[in-house]
Amino acid sequence: MKAITLVGSTGSIGTQTLDIVSQYPDQFRVVGLAAGRNVELFAAQIRQFRPEIVAISAAEKLAELKAAIQDLNPQPIILAGEAGVIEVARYGDAETVVTGIVGCAGLLPTIAAIEAGKDIALANKETLIAGGPVVLPLVEKHGVKLLPADSEHSAIFQCLQGVPQGGLRKILLTASGGAFRDWPVEKLPEVTVADALKHPNWSMGRKITVDSATLMNKGLEVIEAHFLFGLDYDDIEIVIHPQSIIHSLIELQDTSVLAQLGWPDMRLPLLYALSWPERIYTDWERLDLVKAGSLTFREPDHQKYPCMRLAYAAGRAGGSMPAVLNAANEQAVALFLEEKIGYLDIARCIEWVCDRHQHDNRQNPSLDDILNADQWARQEVLTATTKLAAQSYHIQGITYDKAAI
Amino acid sequence: MKAITLVGSTGSIGTQTLDIVSQYPDQFRVVGLAAGRNVELFAAQIRQFRPEIVAISAAEKLAELKAAIQDLNPQPIILAGEAGVIEVARYGDAETVVTGIVGCAGLLPTIAAIEAGKDIALANKETLIAGGPVVLPLVEKHGVKLLPADSEHSAIFQCLQGVPQGGLRKILLTASGGAFRDWPVEKLPEVTVADALKHPNWSMGRKITVDSATLMNKGLEVIEAHFLFGLDYDDIEIVIHPQSIIHSLIELQDTSVLAQLGWPDMRLPLLYALSWPERIYTDWERLDLVKAGSLTFREPDHQKYPCMRLAYAAGRAGGSMPAVLNAANEQAVALFLEEKIGYLDIARCIEWVCDRHQHDNRQNPSLDDILNADQWARQEVLTATTKLAAQSYHIQGITYDKAAI
Repeated sequence: MKAITLVGSTGSIGTQTLDIVSQYPDQFRVVGLAAGRNVELFAAQIRQFRPEIVAISAAEKLAELKAAIQDLNPQPIILAGEAGVIEVARYGDAETVVTGIVGCAGLLPTIAAIEAGKDIALANKETLIAGGPVVLPLVEKHGVKLLPADSEHSAIFQCLQGVPQGGLRKILLTASGGAFRDWPVEKLPEVTVADALKHPNWSMGRKITVDSATLMNKGLEVIEAHFLFGLDYDDIEIVIHPQSIIHSLIELQDTSVLAQLGWPDMRLPLLYALSWPERIYTDWERLDLVKAGSLTFREPDHQKYPCMRLAYAAGRAGGSMPAVLNAANEQAVALFLEEKIGYLDIARCIEWVCDRHQHDNRQNPSLDDILNADQWARQEVLTATTKLAAQSYHIQGITYDKAAI
Repeated sequence: MKAITLVGSTGSIGTQTLDIVSQYPDQFRVVGLAAGRNVELFAAQIRQFRPEIVAISAAEKLAELKAAIQDLNPQPIILAGEAGVIEVARYGDAETVVTGIVGCAGLLPTIAAIEAGKDIALANKETLIAGGPVVLPLVEKHGVKLLPADSEHSAIFQCLQGVPQGGLRKILLTASGGAFRDWPVEKLPEVTVADALKHPNWSMGRKITVDSATLMNKGLEVIEAHFLFGLDYDDIEIVIHPQSIIHSLIELQDTSVLAQLGWPDMRLPLLYALSWPERIYTDWERLDLVKAGSLTFREPDHQKYPCMRLAYAAGRAGGSMPAVLNAANEQAVALFLEEKIGYLDIARCIEWVCDRHQHDNRQNPSLDDILNADQWARQEVLTATTKLAAQSYHIQGITYDKAAI
């Protein structure tokens, strides 16, 4: 029986994790739960999984939460606010903490869990993309394990299980190619929000579906892979694989290539992050290669996916640049979804903000440096949208047909 | 530096192994070499690799060998005959013995090496297909490792490296589909030797190319996989994968699938069998998935590949039946290559011989039982060809168009 804690239990990762836990009552025990502000769902989760400690991030909801679970006996420890969430993350005998919290808000609880010697089931991408320079030394110091809970990094992690130190030569991240995989580049300036939300394979939230269309999701995964698996950016490649059956591949020193395959289903990497190093039997649909049809691969078109190149550049710049890239992307995608900027403006704004950060970028940033860079970048996107409105589409040295901002 | 011994050094596996060893003089040291009767090549190998002990299986060639290497100083121990080969296999501090010898002749030296506590780089298929019931208990008793040196089993072995005990659920062996992959079944009775020797992907010897056309090679690999990896026959499947890029796959308990990929190149599994558990850097051509094109999969057609079903049936029958299947196939393929029987007669003869062995099949055969069954089956194929000459093509319950034997 593995003891786990879940930070961000009412979000997408959180509910999927608890869904898995409820299917394996003999395998997992929930020690702590922390959530944002959805009291109704949170109270139901507490009622079902009976954790020892809980925290609600929105402190003003504390009374409401207490009232909703007052009949429980025994009562869990009930905390509130950021400090409460951090306390849940480090509490008790949980072996693994699932970090399902979104954004840089996930950094402090994750660090607290690492310092308490817990393995991290990594579902919060900022932990490494923004926090990498701070988090990795702590992972090393406390001897804990980072267990990726997303499809691509889990694929790599699974393939790497039997590979000796130094055996890894290259990582190949597969990408579906997103909504515009088969669009001509010339049509990109005309893209609407509805166009960008048509993802070919995975059913996901709006923000991540846009990231999939721009390939920024893959660019961010490249940065995460760099921190997780210690390879240079030159040795991490993206390949377009429209069927999303091969979830990623690794090449070893002797040129042997290992891959992890499956139907597109977020539950599998989550389950493996929880059960690692064990493999738990599931009755989920088994992969049928004949049914899957042919598996194809193409090189990603740099002109079609300028965000991909921006991500490599930010990763190579290091320091707080990846934090700036990630924050600028979130802000720009939000503006695009509100129809305040055009599709290609996402890349244009990110480039502008990253350029402006170059002189301030520090190679060994503190946690405060990273959090400040994140905040600064979000603000700076708003400036970028006005500054860039009158200019032509010129991103990463490539000029695109002009379209109204 | 790993010490290795090579039994069958002048054959295809032997020369490829020594080719690898010569590329990595810092990694491998040759302790012993044994060969069949090719004195010229053997002497050159001894000269190059300077083993401590050598044996030539054809005892009448001993004097010639001695003369050919008389100038070497120091002289290796020079032996001859089957006893000499066995002595080489068990001699000295070799950690791994590569068994490149063909047929049941490989069984005794392999057993001697296992009893001397050496790991086996398994290139002799009879070791498990025929000898499985005798060899496996010895592997267990002496705590040695069987390291598959062929492409498919190496792929599975590579994928299994990080899998915990009990994690394996299914094995998927990929097959190119051979020369008749795209032929209609009705044309099979007309197949010529030249037709059968056109393999789509791999360049191999004549016998194995015919086995690839009948899919008997894959059927034999299913039996080998059963012994190597301990799965029931129901959990070992064959899938036609015309591109031969994915060399095999495993499915784990949680439905995750791992695969090993690469260009078709026999050297890689050989190198891994030698270097295991390490991964040695090579400058061999790296896999390029975009260049490889699309990877496709089909179910194997049972009517097109009757040998495949014969192999499953023999595997399930167990005992000495797989030895009979293998020996009957060798004999029948030899007759086909001599144009003494037709293509479909290969399966027909094997079925006839296996049927005749049913009553004599023993579940816990001794080594003698196995060797006798092997000899008997070869002889019995000759009887089969005359008995079956006048009959219609009826194999495994399926009737094929009649063609002259």
